Amino acid sequence: MAVYTEVTDEDLAQFLSRYDLGSVLSLKGIAEGVENSNYLLRTEKGTFILTLYEKRVNEDDLPFFLGLMEYLAARGLTCPQPVKSRDGVALGRIAGRPAVLVTFLEGMWIRRPSADHCGQVGEALAKLHEAGAGFPMRRANGLSLAGWAPLFEGARARADQITPGLEKFVAGELAYLQACWPKDLPEGVIHADLFPDNVFFLGAELSGLIDFYFACTDSLAYDAAICLNAWCFEQDASFNVTKGKAFLAGYARVRRFTDAELAALPVLARGAALRFLLTRLVDWLNVPPGAMVRPKDPMEYVKKLRFHQHAKSAADYGWSA
Amino acid sequence: MAVYTEVTDEDLAQFLSRYDLGSVLSLKGIAEGVENSNYLLRTEKGTFILTLYEKRVNEDDLPFFLGLMEYLAARGLTCPQPVKSRDGVALGRIAGRPAVLVTFLEGMWIRRPSADHCGQVGEALAKLHEAGAGFPMRRANGLSLAGWAPLFEGARARADQITPGLEKFVAGELAYLQACWPKDLPEGVIHADLFPDNVFFLGAELSGLIDFYFACTDSLAYDAAICLNAWCFEQDASFNVTKGKAFLAGYARVRRFTDAELAALPVLARGAALRFLLTRLVDWLNVPPGAMVRPKDPMEYVKKLRFHQHAKSAADYGWSA
Repeated sequence: MAVYTEVTDEDLAQFLSRYDLGSVLSLKGIAEGVENSNYLLRTEKGTFILTLYEKRVNEDDLPFFLGLMEYLAARGLTCPQPVKSRDGVALGRIAGRPAVLVTFLEGMWIRRPSADHCGQVGEALAKLHEAGAGFPMRRANGLSLAGWAPLFEGARARADQITPGLEKFVAGELAYLQACWPKDLPEGVIHADLFPDNVFFLGAELSGLIDFYFACTDSLAYDAAICLNAWCFEQDASFNVTKGKAFLAGYARVRRFTDAELAALPVLARGAALRFLLTRLVDWLNVPPGAMVRPKDPMEYVKKLRFHQHAKSAADYGWSA
Repeated sequence: MAVYTEVTDEDLAQFLSRYDLGSVLSLKGIAEGVENSNYLLRTEKGTFILTLYEKRVNEDDLPFFLGLMEYLAARGLTCPQPVKSRDGVALGRIAGRPAVLVTFLEGMWIRRPSADHCGQVGEALAKLHEAGAGFPMRRANGLSLAGWAPLFEGARARADQITPGLEKFVAGELAYLQACWPKDLPEGVIHADLFPDNVFFLGAELSGLIDFYFACTDSLAYDAAICLNAWCFEQDASFNVTKGKAFLAGYARVRRFTDAELAALPVLARGAALRFLLTRLVDWLNVPPGAMVRPKDPMEYVKKLRFHQHAKSAADYGWSA
């Protein structure tokens, strides 16, 4: 539920004076996304998403995100495209915030994905990894191994408020991952947040990917491990191996997993679960008074992490060569 | 910020199976409106608003609201139109809630209205009153004189939490209005909530009115008094008589005020201010934990009410015959 910054008609008129998009027909705040303010804008020239970047986004990262969306689209991936102003610039300012117009992508996100959806997501993720090869910019993943310890330090004193023993559980997992985190896996551009609300379908067919604002340079298989967490568990946090199998097979139809990636899958899945556990923990403990955003439950990822702790190999996720 | 009920793709597919609107292209929750859940729906056949009525709306009132939107449009007013299913029914259910599709109205609402905007709103309100003449259904105004005392009773014990003396101030005003509230003014269909966010403009021209979910049968001049409160004060709650003059003159270009209406304007304006003061007071004191809606400040209407208490005649609002 996200409109943090209100855009007046004067703000919009001033912003749009740099573009050739004709008259404004409507502007509606969208109740989606939790990091930025998003508006659906209709003008005589079409439909667009106007995004205002809020404080959690580092302005220095915007050229990476915008450049990546263009790079991926030029290589056949369907994703929103930054719209450039008359003077060829995509990034502007509105109401004091960095702001960008991107093209509107049709499609709906799937609330209850099936194995078939998971298979298509696997293919799309691998296509993204292939399309991103050679992208010249780099962005470190601030939410990987090196970022987890500081996140945890900020929350550990109050972790047991959520459930007794949570601090010890997370500390143990963090120590394990610091000892065992895989190095030297194939790297490239990863989406890093490919949850169901970032994947659009038109009817039964995947139609595009959105929200590249966590994208970064990291091991490709870690992105797959994020998707196993995001797509292949049921509501009760039980792992659905049919969905896992479909996801991994879909990925492998486009890009071949290396043996090292497959061997690392359980530990990567643990890391991905810990990453979402930690950010949710921090958000849960730091809801500002009057917040308009309801934080997501960190306990979901405790349950998922317990599954990964017992996984012995990629076969436990449905992989078969 | 309002999406209280989430609509899944399955819910939507089931709901739309009653309509001939082609495939779904997108569905976005809209961060506008505080009473209902609103989605912007795009299908092969066009763009629509899907509204799910939440608990504060009485389902029995829906035929009045939907019938009124059709009646007004048939008489030349631009407002959203209920879309009927294949079997000719506008009202459906989705995710357990009464739900309606209406046509999408282009336009933007004006965050900082000018006197010219106020003049156009006056004309549009009078056109609504003229177009509504003869509408065969009636709906009592639950938020007029008879409704204020029970609203206040539910909040008076805690009113001074907002500002010391507020309970006494409201009690005094309520007693005054109970003694002086005008009777026998011309009645008809009123919008009863024609705030800037319910009036769309395309460029400089008023393009349509939305949100008829407070509409009811009441004195027409009371609707004008609501607009004086909603449109003609500045951010600091000072009355802008230039805007008041433009609004009243705009109204009178379309429908002539009676002498009794003009004489009653100050007391009607006091009543309108008290109505919004009271509902904001109740909302302010009853924010549920985890609410996604930030309540509006009741003190704004205390200041407006103080202005009206000193107004002696319609001339104080800018009226000139």
